[in-house]
Amino acid sequence: MSAHSDQSAVTVIGLGPMGRALAGAFLSAGVRVTVWNRTPGRDAELTERGAVAAASPEEAAAASPLTVVCVVNYAAADSVLRREAVIDALKGRTLVNLSADTPERARDAGRWASEHGIRYLDGAIMTPTMTIGTPAGVFIHSGPADLYEEHRPVLETLGGTHTHLGEDIGRAAAYDVALLDIFWTAMAGWTHALAVAKAEGISAGEFVPFAQGIAAILPGIFEGDAADADSGDFSAKVNPVTSAASSMAHIIEASEAHGIDAGVMRAAEGMARRAIGRGHGADGFVRIAELLGRR
Amino acid sequence: MSAHSDQSAVTVIGLGPMGRALAGAFLSAGVRVTVWNRTPGRDAELTERGAVAAASPEEAAAASPLTVVCVVNYAAADSVLRREAVIDALKGRTLVNLSADTPERARDAGRWASEHGIRYLDGAIMTPTMTIGTPAGVFIHSGPADLYEEHRPVLETLGGTHTHLGEDIGRAAAYDVALLDIFWTAMAGWTHALAVAKAEGISAGEFVPFAQGIAAILPGIFEGDAADADSGDFSAKVNPVTSAASSMAHIIEASEAHGIDAGVMRAAEGMARRAIGRGHGADGFVRIAELLGRR
Repeated sequence: MSAHSDQSAVTVIGLGPMGRALAGAFLSAGVRVTVWNRTPGRDAELTERGAVAAASPEEAAAASPLTVVCVVNYAAADSVLRREAVIDALKGRTLVNLSADTPERARDAGRWASEHGIRYLDGAIMTPTMTIGTPAGVFIHSGPADLYEEHRPVLETLGGTHTHLGEDIGRAAAYDVALLDIFWTAMAGWTHALAVAKAEGISAGEFVPFAQGIAAILPGIFEGDAADADSGDFSAKVNPVTSAASSMAHIIEASEAHGIDAGVMRAAEGMARRAIGRGHGADGFVRIAELLGRR
Repeated sequence: MSAHSDQSAVTVIGLGPMGRALAGAFLSAGVRVTVWNRTPGRDAELTERGAVAAASPEEAAAASPLTVVCVVNYAAADSVLRREAVIDALKGRTLVNLSADTPERARDAGRWASEHGIRYLDGAIMTPTMTIGTPAGVFIHSGPADLYEEHRPVLETLGGTHTHLGEDIGRAAAYDVALLDIFWTAMAGWTHALAVAKAEGISAGEFVPFAQGIAAILPGIFEGDAADADSGDFSAKVNPVTSAASSMAHIIEASEAHGIDAGVMRAAEGMARRAIGRGHGADGFVRIAELLGRR
């Protein structure tokens, strides 16, 4: 095996939709790919394209200097990786865990890897499977900067933008969790709004252009809020907490009048009402972030 | 008073930030403006620019063929409008209520107006005060189409896009409530994410470009979800409910590990878990809309 082929060889463990997309993008970029999945039969399309199917995770890990793991969470990753044969195979090699989980579990994985002489990077993929191998993919990474730089060329063959967020191994997971917090909360609001709209006789097709208009104003609001959050100056009167609470009460009333559960908005209104109760009603809504984070 | 001056004369009742923005935009467009506000002293800048300050709401209503009301909610609007002198002044004239409230309250206002011979349109403003008088403003209207067409020229002097959503007088409020549902739920997620990020040592300024990336993917997801919601086909495996529930559990765990309340996400995870419990785990997340709306 030449040094060159070594440098452009990757093992992918986990062949769910995202793992298959990763392996496929590596193959498209001319990287030599070895794959393994707990449940057999997921590798047919990849092996047809030239991937090598390993018979075991230890064989998969031994096949490449870099192993990328992408499974449902760290419990699933651990059940594959934290076995003696796999640890032996990974020793001295690099493991990049792109599975999603909490920052604390990423840090625990970092400690485990360090104890076993496994070079370890943690990461997260912020965009859907169809973006992998395209400029639209967004990857975030954390861990030792020199280790990231060493493997950056092969990771970048996945396309998209790759950002190294820092040496703290939990940092990519922290970004991941916080970004998914925005995403899934917004999605909860969107699906709830669709239900309320339908109860009012408004089809999703009629409603969606206006909903897209709401999404379009968020980036500008985020920009201003971020400046306020970092400066600790919440006196800007854009979107004051009182106005939020008033809107939220209307939404809950309209929802529940149709028999539609409004539990998410009830929880959000609770945050706003408590902020008002603490004397912050005239502050911008982003004051909520400071109140939530108080120790 | 000539017919021409009549047609380009508007009364604005309510001089909070939005009411002042509306009156200011009418003035900029050369419309003759009469203003009134319950609390005095809000009209100085407007009268300097040529607005006439009425001494009472009935005097204000009598001054123009069209009265625009923009106050905090319909209770506030009713306390000004549902008095004999004001009703007499409005009789045969047109009232446009741009205050925010529930569809049911808009319909009640429509019945009241009809009983008193007041020509009535309901509307909502979907963008912040600084967009008024600019192309960025978004106005939605509902009520009799001919009445809307009659007043459209003067309403359009406010700038932005104006859409007549239908004859059902509650329709603008229904859109308003559903759109604010998306907006405020997303804002709750954003502020919560800022708190989690800060607890993880990530500043808002570092975090915001990635958060803006999340906002940027929403319009495309809304488009696909809307098609699924209208067709009732939830088999698309993009963002399945199980994947949402798994992410939500990570978010809650990471949040609460820092002592940060995760009530909004707990409510959202409840929706996802119940959808899974009903056998819809493999469906796209938008299935939640259908489940929420079931009778």
